[in-house]
Amino acid sequence: MPNVSSPLLPDWIAHWAATAPERVALLADGHEWTFAALDADVTLAVRRLASLGLKPGDRLATLLHNSAGAVVLTHAALRLGATLVPLNVRLTDGELAWMITDSPSRLLIAEPRTSGLAERAARAPRAPVVVSLSDALGVGEDDADVEGSANLSLMHDPEHVLAVIYTSGTTGRPKGAMLTVGNFWWSAIGSALNLGVRSDDRWLACLPLFHVGGLSIMVRCAIYGTAAVVHDGFDASAVNSSLDDERITLVSVVAVMLQRMIDDRAERPYPTSLRCVLLGGGPAPLPLLERCARLGVPVVTTYGMTETTSQVVTMLPEDTRHRPGAAGRPLYPNAIRIAEGTREADAGEPGEILVKGPVVMAGYSGDPQASARTLVDGWLRTGDVGFVDDHGYLHVLDRRDDLIITGGENVYPVEVETALLTHPSVAETGVVGVPDSRWGQRVVAVVRLVDESPVAPPNASELLRAHCRSLLAGYKTPSEIRIVSDALPRTAAGKLQRGILRERIAASVADGDV
Amino acid sequence: MPNVSSPLLPDWIAHWAATAPERVALLADGHEWTFAALDADVTLAVRRLASLGLKPGDRLATLLHNSAGAVVLTHAALRLGATLVPLNVRLTDGELAWMITDSPSRLLIAEPRTSGLAERAARAPRAPVVVSLSDALGVGEDDADVEGSANLSLMHDPEHVLAVIYTSGTTGRPKGAMLTVGNFWWSAIGSALNLGVRSDDRWLACLPLFHVGGLSIMVRCAIYGTAAVVHDGFDASAVNSSLDDERITLVSVVAVMLQRMIDDRAERPYPTSLRCVLLGGGPAPLPLLERCARLGVPVVTTYGMTETTSQVVTMLPEDTRHRPGAAGRPLYPNAIRIAEGTREADAGEPGEILVKGPVVMAGYSGDPQASARTLVDGWLRTGDVGFVDDHGYLHVLDRRDDLIITGGENVYPVEVETALLTHPSVAETGVVGVPDSRWGQRVVAVVRLVDESPVAPPNASELLRAHCRSLLAGYKTPSEIRIVSDALPRTAAGKLQRGILRERIAASVADGDV
Repeated sequence: MPNVSSPLLPDWIAHWAATAPERVALLADGHEWTFAALDADVTLAVRRLASLGLKPGDRLATLLHNSAGAVVLTHAALRLGATLVPLNVRLTDGELAWMITDSPSRLLIAEPRTSGLAERAARAPRAPVVVSLSDALGVGEDDADVEGSANLSLMHDPEHVLAVIYTSGTTGRPKGAMLTVGNFWWSAIGSALNLGVRSDDRWLACLPLFHVGGLSIMVRCAIYGTAAVVHDGFDASAVNSSLDDERITLVSVVAVMLQRMIDDRAERPYPTSLRCVLLGGGPAPLPLLERCARLGVPVVTTYGMTETTSQVVTMLPEDTRHRPGAAGRPLYPNAIRIAEGTREADAGEPGEILVKGPVVMAGYSGDPQASARTLVDGWLRTGDVGFVDDHGYLHVLDRRDDLIITGGENVYPVEVETALLTHPSVAETGVVGVPDSRWGQRVVAVVRLVDESPVAPPNASELLRAHCRSLLAGYKTPSEIRIVSDALPRTAAGKLQRGILRERIAASVADGDV
Repeated sequence: MPNVSSPLLPDWIAHWAATAPERVALLADGHEWTFAALDADVTLAVRRLASLGLKPGDRLATLLHNSAGAVVLTHAALRLGATLVPLNVRLTDGELAWMITDSPSRLLIAEPRTSGLAERAARAPRAPVVVSLSDALGVGEDDADVEGSANLSLMHDPEHVLAVIYTSGTTGRPKGAMLTVGNFWWSAIGSALNLGVRSDDRWLACLPLFHVGGLSIMVRCAIYGTAAVVHDGFDASAVNSSLDDERITLVSVVAVMLQRMIDDRAERPYPTSLRCVLLGGGPAPLPLLERCARLGVPVVTTYGMTETTSQVVTMLPEDTRHRPGAAGRPLYPNAIRIAEGTREADAGEPGEILVKGPVVMAGYSGDPQASARTLVDGWLRTGDVGFVDDHGYLHVLDRRDDLIITGGENVYPVEVETALLTHPSVAETGVVGVPDSRWGQRVVAVVRLVDESPVAPPNASELLRAHCRSLLAGYKTPSEIRIVSDALPRTAAGKLQRGILRERIAASVADGDV
């Protein structure tokens, strides 16, 4: 039983529907929901899901693009005492079949755009029953029409698993991170103490709600009693319009999104209502940060992952500009340390980033071995490499798996990518290590040039190598720079997938192309 | 051991000193402290207190008016792992002797203004050693000069008792409410979710720091990383100047203070920087609320007590004006209910107010019987009478002990006082029940008239009785109205002491005077 220090938490939507029924809770699909309206929709969905056989403790898989319905289902699953399993709509049949067998879920909610994928997955053993989103929401039904009685849970145990989110899988087989009510609660409180909370805040989610970055915005706004603004996917111009016209105060993005946003609006400043652009999803390229500083974009860098319920290290809004390269400091009351082998790294010395605190997941669903490998003495082994500077700020270098060791020297891909991005002709780049008989690994960069680049492929590689050499030590300079015309492989959250890049390069060694 | 949902809490001052060292933490005694400066002073005080023999788990009594030193000691006691026992500077020798014997404390910190009282108290058995405030703070000493090594506790257990605060004792012998780190933490978070948090907030404390109302402001601001502004006592004109000139955003007051503040500044509006006047300390008189509404003063009513670590029921800032008479709704995640005997009262039906949640004290120090009587099945029996309306808003009527039963009818003193205060000649009033052979009790009002009142004592009583009769049922109308020229008896926090009023009236029945 939760004790006094860890009390049961009243349902957030129900709390605000009673306290501030007329406040705006959600803007999505061109409509607006007050907390009272959202609460009513959640109640209807809970009744409908219960009538479809969903019970407390069950898992509810969803295969949904961003929409108001996806938000309603999120809160309905919690109120029913079920666990949400939000699946990536870009999954292949095979990946999906594996996840729904692994989870396992009683229902799988799909929408017209994802019903084909859902139906194919439903042929797997132990597959869930596929239900359409409109059916699950009870759209067009009267309260009285919904069969079955809802088992409303208006007090939530902080230990209850709110969601199982499969990690992006940049390496290895996807694992389902179990995130509790308490994880989301402490994440929201840590963020509130860092960024502040205002009753008229509006947080824009253009990240997928099936990722922790998007889902955590929904839960955070519900806890704060503030408005979530949900876009169906990322469109730079749509985001810019929203920031201009909808009094958005906070928005969460990854670097590639922010880049497109400021490209789209040229030099036009953002309205003063925008008080925080929360930038996560990997180390922030310095040229981008500098450009944002010049334009007065209030960027706040952050570091986090599914296993930490989104942000866990974030810059304080007021001091972002003075510490280029830093991701921030741990959100209260979490802690970080850097491990170099079995010892503690010194200040400034890179090592594996470890995280401890109430935002750290309960473990991986159904995989005690992976949980035990990842959670050691209460510390989450992130697999990321970074260092803490003299002032306690975390600097994230790379995924440990992405570290390149060439001739005994460590090369952090982000450092090389950052150097390449300072060249005006480079639109995006990914740097990986490829096996090399002499050096162990050698540094290879893949580059997409900007449209109408003054330098063309034949000369570009040599020119960019010389550019790198002027900025970096010789062993860090790519031995090879490949120019490509397609966008680089990224996750739905915009993270560069260096694993796929490595595979393509390995294949091209045979085929002669990336 | 605290679990994931109830983690250890890093020291707040140390956290903000590392994260935002240049932010203003405190304005007091005409000076300004950044978090870095406050942290340094706290560290020095911890070393000094340790060298004076104070150990983790010890109690540290203080007999201090509001000052920066009192704030530093508060944070130093916590960091040392000790428990603060802040004593009321208005105590009599006898009361003080009882409390320091009851607590019992190792040290008693006094200042020149309170040293006489402290020295007399130190003659009691098991009395603490009296230390001057400047000695305890290590003022004028170098770090190196302070003997002994400090036992710094930079991670706080939410179950640790941060303070023992003796309740005002409007009835019975004062009892020491044990308030934990977790109590203060959840109080701060519940308030933040209701009122919001902004990094440039400044909360003015003109309530005594030895009461929960003042102390909780200090802890709240430390948790938020925002500035506390401390006044040495309440002076209406000084508070108004502070609100005008020091960018105060929030201020906590009781009704009598607010009345004097708006009297002092006539009709001049407050600056827009002032976003919340938190009004507690008893039911708010309707005429005062109406006057504030006309003047645009952003009043937010609240209800709380020592045993709930200050506010536990508070109005949402945006809807105060629409619900006159309501104190508010429970701060997340606390709950209230109304008990009428052994059953639950209906909506609108008065009964005893019960409170449950993480802001409820751990119990009374050294008094398991009183704790067991007060904390029943996790519910705090407040001894206050109130009702919850159809919308879930608490309306506080009175202390249960103040309830007047006359001819079998319940009369709530506040209702009668509110009626009297609507008369322009009434400056302040207190209503009590006195024994009556025929009706059990009869209603007696004590009134102080405004200066230059057009009505004079001989006629005033009859005139005010007629005024009451026009607003109230006959059984509620005072059978007697006594006009007095002195201010009514109030606690240091400004609460009317009806017990003292009752005693004076009982004595006057013999002596023929109030």
